[in-house]
Amino acid sequence: MALEKVDAYLESHRAKFEDQLKDLIRIPSVSAQPDHDADTRKAAAFVRDDLAAMGLKAEIIPTKRHPIVYAEWLGAPGKPTVLVYGHYDVQPAEPLEPWLSPPFEPTVRDGNLYARGATDDKGQMFTHLKAAEAWLKAGGGLPVNVKYLIEGEEEIGGANLEEYVAANRERLKCDYAVISDTSQFAPGQPAITYGLKGLAYFELNVKGANRDLHSGTFGGAVQNPLNALATILASLKGPDGKIQIAGFYDSVKPLEDWERAEFAKLPFSEGAFQADLDAPALFGEEGYTTLERKWARPTCDVHGLWGGYAGPGPKTVLPCKAGAKLSFRLVPGQDPAAVDRQLRAHLAEVTPPGVTVELTTLQGAPAVLVNVQTPGFRAAVRAVEAGFGTKPVFIREGGSIPVVGLLKDQLGVDTLLLGWGQNDDNLHGPNEKFSLADFHRGIKAGAHLLHELALETI
Amino acid sequence: MALEKVDAYLESHRAKFEDQLKDLIRIPSVSAQPDHDADTRKAAAFVRDDLAAMGLKAEIIPTKRHPIVYAEWLGAPGKPTVLVYGHYDVQPAEPLEPWLSPPFEPTVRDGNLYARGATDDKGQMFTHLKAAEAWLKAGGGLPVNVKYLIEGEEEIGGANLEEYVAANRERLKCDYAVISDTSQFAPGQPAITYGLKGLAYFELNVKGANRDLHSGTFGGAVQNPLNALATILASLKGPDGKIQIAGFYDSVKPLEDWERAEFAKLPFSEGAFQADLDAPALFGEEGYTTLERKWARPTCDVHGLWGGYAGPGPKTVLPCKAGAKLSFRLVPGQDPAAVDRQLRAHLAEVTPPGVTVELTTLQGAPAVLVNVQTPGFRAAVRAVEAGFGTKPVFIREGGSIPVVGLLKDQLGVDTLLLGWGQNDDNLHGPNEKFSLADFHRGIKAGAHLLHELALETI
Repeated sequence: MALEKVDAYLESHRAKFEDQLKDLIRIPSVSAQPDHDADTRKAAAFVRDDLAAMGLKAEIIPTKRHPIVYAEWLGAPGKPTVLVYGHYDVQPAEPLEPWLSPPFEPTVRDGNLYARGATDDKGQMFTHLKAAEAWLKAGGGLPVNVKYLIEGEEEIGGANLEEYVAANRERLKCDYAVISDTSQFAPGQPAITYGLKGLAYFELNVKGANRDLHSGTFGGAVQNPLNALATILASLKGPDGKIQIAGFYDSVKPLEDWERAEFAKLPFSEGAFQADLDAPALFGEEGYTTLERKWARPTCDVHGLWGGYAGPGPKTVLPCKAGAKLSFRLVPGQDPAAVDRQLRAHLAEVTPPGVTVELTTLQGAPAVLVNVQTPGFRAAVRAVEAGFGTKPVFIREGGSIPVVGLLKDQLGVDTLLLGWGQNDDNLHGPNEKFSLADFHRGIKAGAHLLHELALETI
Repeated sequence: MALEKVDAYLESHRAKFEDQLKDLIRIPSVSAQPDHDADTRKAAAFVRDDLAAMGLKAEIIPTKRHPIVYAEWLGAPGKPTVLVYGHYDVQPAEPLEPWLSPPFEPTVRDGNLYARGATDDKGQMFTHLKAAEAWLKAGGGLPVNVKYLIEGEEEIGGANLEEYVAANRERLKCDYAVISDTSQFAPGQPAITYGLKGLAYFELNVKGANRDLHSGTFGGAVQNPLNALATILASLKGPDGKIQIAGFYDSVKPLEDWERAEFAKLPFSEGAFQADLDAPALFGEEGYTTLERKWARPTCDVHGLWGGYAGPGPKTVLPCKAGAKLSFRLVPGQDPAAVDRQLRAHLAEVTPPGVTVELTTLQGAPAVLVNVQTPGFRAAVRAVEAGFGTKPVFIREGGSIPVVGLLKDQLGVDTLLLGWGQNDDNLHGPNEKFSLADFHRGIKAGAHLLHELALETI
């Protein structure tokens, strides 16, 4: 039967799929860095060409920044329609020094593929292309209708996808959305993610005098923007790990008892987690476990700091400006726009005299909670079990995938978050990796998902 | 008479002196940056050659890092001996972007010479070479004995000068030391500085996990080194501008009543000071005026901050390390070694869980107070008045010139701090400048100082 032929096709094309993924990864499609704009275009063309080659109607949709790839196959009338979302853009590779192999030269070590974008999201996204290819090439066509929406601004929170989805609700109409851009719970324990955090990301710039000054001649008489920046950033979080912005927790949806109970049952070792990171201690909000902190409590992190002299030796400059990037991960109930207002009010309160601050909002998206009691989830559980040989657990995730909220708002669909990655994949850091075994298991789960969704009544 | 011939020589050699100074400034002798080591050697050779050309016995003394230039003329037996100290090394020119003309291409605008090292200390140091040249070329010889000690590690607090002085106390024996590496009180108001701050300079590195992490996957569960660095730096100073390190003020020598009274009499406008800096407000330790804060109260400044992502757009990294450069300006009574210990104890107290810190001491020197009731000071007052046409006021200074303490300890001499610069000369910052009129006034004052010192009994 068709499903067996599909499985056989997957088995016989493993090497080809890996080579294709490597070709995609070699394109350094860093969306945040304008000098890579030609590369994002190249990556979009690669994805479009691959979808077209397997028989989908595929096109590139230009935007004001990075293009969107859209493709569809609607040859299963009366059957459900699945929208697969993914992104071809990647995080900057910097810092380069810690990479053991070049970030854009995919290198296999110990069964893992090392490269920027290996797991986030080129490798995971690509599984769903290969799943469709197997049905089209070996299964006599797809068992459901499919639509692919692959964007290039996920890592920069670009607004162009949102505009496109809002303007193309009819075209994108579907019964389920599927995204693979998360992680399994652990090696050997696949998971379906039912909750994601939101994000409010900012750049903060602090300015003092009109020029850099000598710290001997002027020190003590004027505010130092670097000291002031430290004071502002330190004010955001207390020693108990709680965020100290007025109103910040007001609308936070508390963890439900069943969730805390389920999390507690998962085979998670705080000691092993700490040992893997080689951190001197774990640290987080008082009153919560590590999994609860990671998955269901809002956070505040500084992502970058700059200002003054960072070269060798001493330099007694009193710099005139300093800056930081920082973000808050939000949980269900929190509104990024409200957090934006609360942060601005907080800055007005805590900025020391003698400097001015400028806050730029770079990204904002609310958190997502998906209902786990739906036919799509039942189909996904069976498909993941078929691909990975193990029943998935249901988990939440500390990361943010703003498109999940967008698809819910604009298309009215819940998203199946089927993560093939691992927590130690170093996404966004040096030496990002993706297990090739999981890559192939993910392709198989994706292929079975199309089969299982066809069996469910909508 | 000789003094008139000297004055005439100075008048007729203005253009030549300026050209020579420009040649010296074109050598980018940045002591902190090892790729400029050839330049520090070149600058040392330039100074040695100039001293030798005018008739002094001059030599280059190699050290483990940057060479020292020593020269002497001892042809005035029975007369006092003056040791002139200066430094040929300069601060790094970075950041380069704000410079209106290249930092090592001296450029004259509005009567000022713009370049790194223009005032600190090439321009000021050079005045004493030209003063001696005038006596030797036009005055029939010097009225006193002179020794020149010009080093190349002032801006990095190198230990080699200290070693050399300690090992050559007999050779360097003198009655007065003279240094021009400070500022006038204001344009048209020359000053002699009788107090300098000390310095304790550090680099602080904070480490968390063994790798950069995704702030979604790990945020909230581990300490972020950038947040931790902000917390540590913010703990150093309170909202009242007071340094919050236990014991820090214990040994601070308070300002005497006569000093507060003298400072208050100086024509200093806090409004004009603020307006020149275009700062939104002045800020400093509660209970002190701006001049008192600048000159006589200890300070704490962060000079550089680094860590994480500072490129365009958002990047949700949770970096594994962060760092800062910071220093304390010390006042009389404070011991840099004690401050070092106090800071380390403070860090042990305030470092948040989940990170480790490493503190490196880069520089340490105590403050200096010089007795103003000496024959040398009386001579200096007359010489400065001759050069600048105005009687100098006595001031203190927030900068640190560790060699003043060294000369006192090792040679038992007080130093005459005769500053030819201005407070807005941007030393250590972009667009450093030196008034050419003050350059020539300084040369004249230097030449007259040699004459006036010969008249004083030791």
